[in-house]
Amino acid sequence: MAGRALVQWEENRRNAPESLTVDIYTGGPAPDGLDGVAFYQVPYAPSTQGVDERLDIIGRMPSLEVLQLTSAGFEHVLELLPDHVTLCNGRGLHDASTAEHALGLILAAQRDLPRWALDQRGHRWSPAPLRSLADRRVVIVGHGSIGRAIERRLLPFETEVVRVASRARPEEDVHGVDELPALLPHADIVVLVTPLNEHTRGLFGAAELALLPDDALVVNVGRGPVLDTGALLAEKGRVRASLDVTDPEPLSAEHPLWDAPGVFVTPHVAGGSTAFYPRARAFMDSQLARWASGEPLENVVRPGRG
Amino acid sequence: MAGRALVQWEENRRNAPESLTVDIYTGGPAPDGLDGVAFYQVPYAPSTQGVDERLDIIGRMPSLEVLQLTSAGFEHVLELLPDHVTLCNGRGLHDASTAEHALGLILAAQRDLPRWALDQRGHRWSPAPLRSLADRRVVIVGHGSIGRAIERRLLPFETEVVRVASRARPEEDVHGVDELPALLPHADIVVLVTPLNEHTRGLFGAAELALLPDDALVVNVGRGPVLDTGALLAEKGRVRASLDVTDPEPLSAEHPLWDAPGVFVTPHVAGGSTAFYPRARAFMDSQLARWASGEPLENVVRPGRG
Repeated sequence: MAGRALVQWEENRRNAPESLTVDIYTGGPAPDGLDGVAFYQVPYAPSTQGVDERLDIIGRMPSLEVLQLTSAGFEHVLELLPDHVTLCNGRGLHDASTAEHALGLILAAQRDLPRWALDQRGHRWSPAPLRSLADRRVVIVGHGSIGRAIERRLLPFETEVVRVASRARPEEDVHGVDELPALLPHADIVVLVTPLNEHTRGLFGAAELALLPDDALVVNVGRGPVLDTGALLAEKGRVRASLDVTDPEPLSAEHPLWDAPGVFVTPHVAGGSTAFYPRARAFMDSQLARWASGEPLENVVRPGRG
Repeated sequence: MAGRALVQWEENRRNAPESLTVDIYTGGPAPDGLDGVAFYQVPYAPSTQGVDERLDIIGRMPSLEVLQLTSAGFEHVLELLPDHVTLCNGRGLHDASTAEHALGLILAAQRDLPRWALDQRGHRWSPAPLRSLADRRVVIVGHGSIGRAIERRLLPFETEVVRVASRARPEEDVHGVDELPALLPHADIVVLVTPLNEHTRGLFGAAELALLPDDALVVNVGRGPVLDTGALLAEKGRVRASLDVTDPEPLSAEHPLWDAPGVFVTPHVAGGSTAFYPRARAFMDSQLARWASGEPLENVVRPGRG
């Protein structure tokens, strides 16, 4: 492949095939020589601050062939890209981090961890019997790579996992979302891990919550608007929730979710852990090697045309 | 087998072989006919309140052949038992519960869950990057059934587990405690899950803590005095700790552990969850069937003599 590659991490530059010219860009002011860039990895940032600058320079890359994201979401760059550019996303790079946070949210609820944290702040030693995670039936709504990563982590806890995806795949024992009304009355825990789109917005609302047994737990590590906040508040005290994403986001200081009994909130931190970096660097090594040798790239979400 | 069995749960009475006479005793005032009891399951109670009464009646059971506990610890009943009585403990019945609490304590520390609980109380949305559990080397000190249950739950989190027991068992890849000085400098997380005895009291003290890297995490789900509280406090801010058991226990309101940075405390609740009951009932069904048919009992910790 002709042209330069622009990547974020020195390690990837060091490991790149000798045939490639690789430069580093970590964000900030545009580097020189943008007109020669053929492969551009948009630098990862734990927050969205400063992302615009990293995207703005795409318009100054007339030789661009491949745009590589480290996020799973890619809708925000589609309109910036000429048709001939191949777009690759970061599917899988956040799986380990998000899945372990999902388990943390589940165990926090079952094991009353927020209560012990508040008791510790108040210097109170007040033991009480706990719920277990063992023996619970966990319905995972969204059975992509993160859903499967959550399932792998759940099974050794002696749980039963029920898989739900947008469409049934009986050969993989995956139910369709249209089966939720039959599944929810028997669910102890529901984990929402779907992307946000026209089909999933409000997917879990008053009707679905009403079908859950008393004391059931809803966990959301997908996107906030998949779960109807008002409907959840209407069921507070009966259905519990552990939420890493909320609607709206961030929650204002006055939002009633903060004080809703049985609700635990973490501020959209599931994907942003140290687990990301080694996985992203290894992926970039592999992707640059594929690009250099002309092999098909991984994680292509929109092939370049023409 | 001749004689009556006295058990706690109606389900076990219902499922018992027809050859057995089974009565229910859930604690409280002594039931009639103690002199005919040959098999006695000491009723389980989540706390130790009222346990004396349940043990006191052992002295009024001249026909007793088998004493069945639901706890792993049994030292407290040895002096109450005539030599001819076989003693069985509840090894394994608390494994699932304790192991999942250990994972909860680990994820709480790696994922800053106590911080989010306090932020929620203060209505603060303040995201920050997190540590992961993925990629960590976890040293489990104590490789009995709970240690193995913790290992099974840890492995899908993409961790490396190092096994340590009182003695090395190279054929099972288990290190001896004498190897801790070589292992600790490379440990990210240490889980203490040993019983308390003359060898384990103070096992983890100033020397061991000093060998840990900065930001390492010590988790104790075994017994409080295995970890030296004073030594831990001396390392506060450098080494983190998640403790379900402490020394002393309970912690007084003035104890410095409550406010030590990086320390998370739960009040000895790991084993006491709903996971215990189905496992204990299934075990009692099996044990009564073995007793009725003359098969060897499970979990014998002291065979009856003569």
